[in-house]
Amino acid sequence: MVWFGSMAWTFALTPESETPLYRQLYEQIAHKIRSGEFGQGFRLPATRELAGLLGLNRATVSAAYELLDTEGLISGQVGRGSYVTAGPARLASALDWEALLEHGETAVAGGGGGWGGEAISFVMSRPSHELFPLEDFRASCAAVLGRGDLAGILQLGSPSGYEPLRRHLLEDARRQGLATPADDLIVTNGCQQALDLLARVLVRPGDSVVAEDPVYTGLKNLVAGVGAQLVGVPVGSEGLEVGQLERVLERERPRFLVVTPNFQNPTGATLPLAARHALLEAAARARVPVVENDAYGQLRYTGEPLAALKHLDQRGGTVLLRSFSKISFPGLRVGWALGPKPLIDRLRHAKEASDLHTDQLSQAVLLEFAESGRLGAHLGRVLQAGAERLRATLDACRAFLPAGARWTRPEGGMNVWVRLPEPLDAEELLPRARKEGVAYLPGRLFAISRREPGALRLSFAGLPPEAIRAGLEILGRVFSGSAEAVSRNLGPVQAMV
Amino acid sequence: MVWFGSMAWTFALTPESETPLYRQLYEQIAHKIRSGEFGQGFRLPATRELAGLLGLNRATVSAAYELLDTEGLISGQVGRGSYVTAGPARLASALDWEALLEHGETAVAGGGGGWGGEAISFVMSRPSHELFPLEDFRASCAAVLGRGDLAGILQLGSPSGYEPLRRHLLEDARRQGLATPADDLIVTNGCQQALDLLARVLVRPGDSVVAEDPVYTGLKNLVAGVGAQLVGVPVGSEGLEVGQLERVLERERPRFLVVTPNFQNPTGATLPLAARHALLEAAARARVPVVENDAYGQLRYTGEPLAALKHLDQRGGTVLLRSFSKISFPGLRVGWALGPKPLIDRLRHAKEASDLHTDQLSQAVLLEFAESGRLGAHLGRVLQAGAERLRATLDACRAFLPAGARWTRPEGGMNVWVRLPEPLDAEELLPRARKEGVAYLPGRLFAISRREPGALRLSFAGLPPEAIRAGLEILGRVFSGSAEAVSRNLGPVQAMV
Repeated sequence: MVWFGSMAWTFALTPESETPLYRQLYEQIAHKIRSGEFGQGFRLPATRELAGLLGLNRATVSAAYELLDTEGLISGQVGRGSYVTAGPARLASALDWEALLEHGETAVAGGGGGWGGEAISFVMSRPSHELFPLEDFRASCAAVLGRGDLAGILQLGSPSGYEPLRRHLLEDARRQGLATPADDLIVTNGCQQALDLLARVLVRPGDSVVAEDPVYTGLKNLVAGVGAQLVGVPVGSEGLEVGQLERVLERERPRFLVVTPNFQNPTGATLPLAARHALLEAAARARVPVVENDAYGQLRYTGEPLAALKHLDQRGGTVLLRSFSKISFPGLRVGWALGPKPLIDRLRHAKEASDLHTDQLSQAVLLEFAESGRLGAHLGRVLQAGAERLRATLDACRAFLPAGARWTRPEGGMNVWVRLPEPLDAEELLPRARKEGVAYLPGRLFAISRREPGALRLSFAGLPPEAIRAGLEILGRVFSGSAEAVSRNLGPVQAMV
Repeated sequence: MVWFGSMAWTFALTPESETPLYRQLYEQIAHKIRSGEFGQGFRLPATRELAGLLGLNRATVSAAYELLDTEGLISGQVGRGSYVTAGPARLASALDWEALLEHGETAVAGGGGGWGGEAISFVMSRPSHELFPLEDFRASCAAVLGRGDLAGILQLGSPSGYEPLRRHLLEDARRQGLATPADDLIVTNGCQQALDLLARVLVRPGDSVVAEDPVYTGLKNLVAGVGAQLVGVPVGSEGLEVGQLERVLERERPRFLVVTPNFQNPTGATLPLAARHALLEAAARARVPVVENDAYGQLRYTGEPLAALKHLDQRGGTVLLRSFSKISFPGLRVGWALGPKPLIDRLRHAKEASDLHTDQLSQAVLLEFAESGRLGAHLGRVLQAGAERLRATLDACRAFLPAGARWTRPEGGMNVWVRLPEPLDAEELLPRARKEGVAYLPGRLFAISRREPGALRLSFAGLPPEAIRAGLEILGRVFSGSAEAVSRNLGPVQAMV
């Protein structure tokens, strides 16, 4: 929230979104004009002024204003600011979409500021595209394009997935002891769609879903979108605190429990084997299905792999979600869900109603990428780079973060969770870090109900070690400067000015 | 429904699904065993017997039984039938997925029988893959794979769509007078996902949605899946009967109206210009949004194109859905929705919660396919073939269908709607047609509330003219034989035996 004159401006600019920032800003101002919040004649701040208030580039604000001008919503004069020229009256004869859309706001408010092109961004939990093996990808495409069944790949397909890929994944799961004869597998558009389909078939408005707190933002959006309540169980350094789980499951009677046992997003924590058993027992007693979100499981850089919940669960109450997104190319939306047949049957119906089936070109290319051994070779390089990047992150945290800061020590994945000492507030400090060219996501975005103002997520997988060190050196300076100011009895915000 | 002993067996085998028939049969029998409907010791019919009852190949039934045997659910002895060996007791310790999944059955019951490999199938409303321009497709892929931004295409993308494709589609829509400055566009996984996202942001359980009756089965599944009620307005030879619309909109106050103004699926009917204006007026008076489902609009073989509702609507109350599926490759799931910005904003949030974004490889390839002119060239060939196939269908209807049969005369699209004279029942006659090697979908699958036992859909786009003529000659014989039997005072079913 920023203040302009006597007016509080609330912007929900979403850092994880790839909608350009200028467009997000434009849309939110346009909305305020169309809804009448900014009446005709209302003066907008000058671009330089708003850029300063929001911690954005001036060019970003100018681009948003230009769009508003093109739409006839504002008109500006150089140096004199811009004025709202149209209000709700202009659209009075039109259908009132805002009123029609009133119920069920699905978006969770985004970051505390906005998003630009910072030099060093710890923001996105995604693989490094510098590591993409483009030649191997091209070779996999060429193999698919040369095949006799290409026309079949381009024709309408099955909601279960491209059958050769589905079979490959299922056989692979059987070899790993993950699939029993009572299981089936469906291909989805990444883990996100698997979660979405599960919510569709299991959850109705007013139901509750239990998950780790803090949790992946995509799950928050999705559960809010279906009108259900997300209830959190705290995540400690050893993953979800299983001791608290039983009570929560008893109390909430949730439709399901989502757990990320390996390298949880955002904390990076991994659930030990004993806790996995205890979790399954608690879920079995409460008769609550377990959704094992394992997008990161294959990205283990050190230590020994632990058995999947799906493997340990004897009662057939677990569905396992995996994906190609984190281990290969997230722009190709291919993941899968493995679980008991009655559930997969229903997911298939929901999938058919949702989008008929997953894109078959990408399914065929990823199958070829996997079967040719190229995925394995790529994964080897990704694991090596990930190990270096994780080590660089942990070393730099030790070297640069202020006294009293704590952070998780993941053995894989893409994220480290930092907790700054009190009273530092990661969200308040973000604009200052961004001014210095470094970005991260404050913990608030991931919180269900637990407030941790000092928490922030560092997504390291997309950055080379030198950038990680340079970024953490800057963050260390920003955080330490604020901590020193606090110790001299100044508030952290004042200290920044 | 078939009778075995004193037991009615209801199978919902879905002809439009690409899940193999043996698998559908297996799943439904397994479900009956797991739910206890078929208790331990229950005798299943011999494969030959069940095949006869359901009008399936014996090999299909055998494959289903083999799977049931592998699962330990039945055990059989040659010539003596198969017995259920496991019941719900066997799974007593397991999580009861069936109970958890009880609410909200999303699947609409499928066809009246099952599905095999008929020689001539009028079943699928999809393009002919013999016409796929594979060399042009390969060239488009090669161009994308050779580009400098390939890594960006493979990286996580935007919920709005791959920006170059989004811009191309939006500019194209502007040139065609379809998009105003108040509009925006989002890329979806085909029209089906656009409909699904609209239902997510506009519809809650208990709401109603108005559509044409008969209607596209995918819409029935989707509206049932969100717990809403689908209310039909009859479709005549000139599309939705607008005269009845106003009353229905007043009475139902639906969340939106879905209309397919061009070559409607299943009837092939097109809404005349005057009716388009009247429809928009009725919707505007009732303040009901219009969803213009235009998957088939570009497949006009004769006559003059009519202005889109999106173009005619002055009040900004229409959202237009289009897709690459019917004009190029349905295995690549790329469509789009064009509509007022506040709506598209919300669809973008729903899209992000649903599956983050549409596959970017296919978006990039289809953009290249379109911009290189290859899509235009392909569309030219598709239109020529479609015109021939439509003409063959209408000619053969005239030549072979029995006296009293009526059918629509579409100017484009993929479907002709046939109404057999009373008392012929298209669903009852289907097994006989299939025995003769020809398949179609009975009208019941598309009905919302209007019973038309004589109706059936012929999807002609996937068949060459000779197959169309041969298929209709057989259908004519089956239908006429039954009609003659009726005129000799025998019921049509008895006449078949």
